[in-house]
Order: sequence, then structure tokens, then C-alpha cells
Amino acid sequence: MSPDQQNLPIGVFDSGLGGLTVVRAIRELCPAERIVYLGDSARVPYGTRSAATVIRYSKNCAACLSSIGLKMLVVACNTASSVALPALRAQLNVPVLGVIEAGARAVAQCGARVVGVIGTAGTVGSGSYPAQLAQIAPSCEVVQQTAPLFVPLAEEGWTEGEVPLLVARRYLRPLVERQIEVLLLGCTHYPVLHHAIAGALQDLRSHAAIINSATAMAKDVQRTLCEQGLLRTGRGELRCLVTDQPSGFEEMSARFLGERPTDVELIDII
Amino acid sequence: MSPDQQNLPIGVFDSGLGGLTVVRAIRELCPAERIVYLGDSARVPYGTRSAATVIRYSKNCAACLSSIGLKMLVVACNTASSVALPALRAQLNVPVLGVIEAGARAVAQCGARVVGVIGTAGTVGSGSYPAQLAQIAPSCEVVQQTAPLFVPLAEEGWTEGEVPLLVARRYLRPLVERQIEVLLLGCTHYPVLHHAIAGALQDLRSHAAIINSATAMAKDVQRTLCEQGLLRTGRGELRCLVTDQPSGFEEMSARFLGERPTDVELIDII
Repeated sequence: MSPDQQNLPIGVFDSGLGGLTVVRAIRELCPAERIVYLGDSARVPYGTRSAATVIRYSKNCAACLSSIGLKMLVVACNTASSVALPALRAQLNVPVLGVIEAGARAVAQCGARVVGVIGTAGTVGSGSYPAQLAQIAPSCEVVQQTAPLFVPLAEEGWTEGEVPLLVARRYLRPLVERQIEVLLLGCTHYPVLHHAIAGALQDLRSHAAIINSATAMAKDVQRTLCEQGLLRTGRGELRCLVTDQPSGFEEMSARFLGERPTDVELIDII
Repeated sequence: MSPDQQNLPIGVFDSGLGGLTVVRAIRELCPAERIVYLGDSARVPYGTRSAATVIRYSKNCAACLSSIGLKMLVVACNTASSVALPALRAQLNVPVLGVIEAGARAVAQCGARVVGVIGTAGTVGSGSYPAQLAQIAPSCEVVQQTAPLFVPLAEEGWTEGEVPLLVARRYLRPLVERQIEVLLLGCTHYPVLHHAIAGALQDLRSHAAIINSATAMAKDVQRTLCEQGLLRTGRGELRCLVTDQPSGFEEMSARFLGERPTDVELIDII
């Protein structure tokens, strides 16, 4: 591959700001990469919309990002990953990676017999993780659990203390009773609650390992860049595009990204 | 007014299912009324959308309901009430009542000097309750607080026990420190958390009275029907129209309505 192609940015999109946890993981693993993040915050959440609408929105996001020139597209949104990958792969001529494939692959690699998946109602209802795991780890039993309070807890920044711990215990108890060996965090918001989730597992006397789909996604990105000779050297950079800037945007994005994003543009893709 | 007009239903709409708490309050106060509820569940939430979009959606809902023939339209959605009432009043030739006017009127009537308003980020950010109160109770000081976790707690049915109590205490402490005399529940979801909210106020040694905007709305409906000679006698009925039926729809609507809705139709108004 030419240096020009290596220097192109990786495009990452999500329905809102949660995908910044994926950006954070990619930056930790591949600090030299240039990343352009698109948060479709004006049309969040995708999880409650029809598949046709999610595909249309995803194609809008992909077109917007690829107009910049990309070497790879990362779909950080669980809903979009579960319905829009074939359409996006037909649309773009660069690798398109999805967060569900990445999370399922990480689970398959660790050889767990029983895996717990927590996610939003949309992700759990879609059955995307069980379907993906049935293909690549057919002997693995999958137990799913919705955890709707985790998103507002993460967005509010209530990540430590009694409330997130109590909520996590309540969501995780049925999974621990099924003796899960691995817990997959199937939503981009959940990594910021890692501490409460780990504490709750400990309280419930579970030794389940936590697999974070953001970290799994970053490993997939690194591997694919290596395989295709697309890894960049030098100093990385991050540019953020959002379709709406709600109140509390800066604090919330800093929470997900682990630092305050400096280069943020409001764009209109509708 | 003619008996024909008295027999027409009251139309009620909200962005999702939360407005069923308003329907429940109207049915308790005016049990003979026929009610048609429209929950625009495919396009929920309205709170994150632009005013122009909320007005367009609200006009869609109003047109759909008024095609049935109405004697009154009740806007149970806080966001729609704060931006769309003038457009809806221009569109329809029946009384159009909004939940924000109703809640503010109830606060003004009790003569409180300091009132706490809790609501979603959209409602609090719009400043609609303070603006309405400034007109009808100018000496009343308004202290606002967003309470984003209350909606998923209500939707999950986590209405009793430690988690909602802890969450309520955390949200209400800053209001109690400002010595509120009245607490207005400025979101249609909150009435199902009444017990936890009252418990938290007690824990914080506050004697603030709780004003429920759903009950306030029902009183406004009753008063307006009386004034215009539109009160119906006989046996009431309820018909529910929704634009999407998400998983858990039945349990959730039963929680807000206080009973299981029997006559539910899925419609398409987009």
C-alpha cells in the first residue's frame, strides 16, 4: 500500500457519543492513526428505529465520512453493525468493521462455554450477538440481559458509588446464576461503568472475565491494518463531527473519550 | 353544545407511552369520557429534536387524532407542549390543552414561594415551566433539576426499593437545600415513581408537596369540559393508537395506565 493510503484517516461512526469509547480504545492501541469520528447525535438513538431507517442513516454517515477519504470504516454502533454492514460494504471500497463481529470474535477466542451479553433493548432484541456467536463458536451458550439504566448512568457520569453498583448487581445476578464465564459489554456506553460492573461481579462471587467490545474492536482494527499494510507511523490526530451538540456535550464526550475533544465540528447530514 | 359533540372523544398524544399517566388521571376524574390516545412511539423521544421537527410531528399527531373527530386535544408531551401549542391551536377548532400550562397553573394556585421542577434535559433546557410560571406567578422562585434516570427507572418498572430511592435522594437534595415548598413532576413518566420521590423528600426532611402534572392536566380537562358544556355521561372507553410496538410494550403501558390497555392499534403516520 502507498504511504498516501496509510496516511488516510480511519472513519468511525455511532448514533451518538458512546462510540467515543471505541475511538479511545483505537487511540490507545494505534496511537499513530488519524481518526475522524462522526456522532449522529441529532438522530440518536438508532436502537428504536426500523432496520430500513438504520440502514439509510448508516449509509448517510458512511457517505459523509468517505467523502473525506478513508482507509477503513469502523461501525461503532451496535444497531448499525447488526443490520447495515452488507449495505455499507457494498457502498465503500475500503474495509468495513463492525463492533458486533469484533465482540463475538473476542468471546470465541477465549473459549468460554457460557457467555453473558448485556446490551440495550435494541441490541438484545436483535439477537445479533447470539447469531454471530452461533457461527463462530457454536458450542458456546449465550445468555442475554438488557441493561437500560446503564446508558443514562454513563451519560450522567454516575459511574462510581452505590447507585451504579446496585444497578449492576441487579442486572448481573441472573447471568451469574447461569454461571457465565465471560461477560461481554455489548454497548459502547458500558466501558465507562467497568468499575461498577467488575465490583458487582465480585459481590456476586463470579469470576467471569469482562470483555469490552470497544477494546475488541480496537484489536480488530489493528489486525486488519497490519494485514493490509495500512498501519501509519507518526503522530495521530482526532477530528469529531456531530450532527447536534446537546447540552452537556463536552463533559459527556470527555467521559467517553477519556479526554476533552478539541476539534469538534457541527455538521448537517440529514 | 349538542349531545353529539359531548359524545366525541378527547384526543391525547405523547411521544411515547408516558402520556398514559395523563390518560389514567383523566379517566379517574372523568370516567364517562371517551379517550383516544396516540403514542408516537416510532419517533420517541421528542426532547432531543429541533423545535421545527417537534412542531411537524405534533401536527401529524393532531391531524391523525382529529380525523377521528374530537371535542378536545390534550398535549401530554412536555416537549410538544412547550413549542407546538400555537401551531396546534391554529390547526384545530377545538380546545387544545397542554401539560405545561396545567402544571404551572397548579403550582400558582397553591401559592408556593419556591418551587422545584424536575424534568428531562429537554424540558428543563427549554425553560418552559419557569417561563409559564413567570407569567402567572411572577413572585414564585423556580429551581429546576434534570432527572434523566427517572425515565428508564419508570420504563423498567423499578419503582420501589433502594435504587429509585437513592436516585431520587440524589436528584432532590439540591432542591431541598433551596427550601422548595412544592415539587412539580414535570414529566409524564414520573407519577409511577411517586412513592420513591415522596420517600426521598421525607428522608431529606422536606415537607414539600408533590404536584403531579398528570393530575393537574386532568383537572384542567374537567374544568374546560364543564365550562364548555362538553362533559359526557355514560360509560367511558379508551382506544390506544401507537406508531410502533416495542418489546415490553404491554407491561410498560400497563404500568403507566394502571391497567392493561385492551384496544391497541398499530398505525403509520409518518
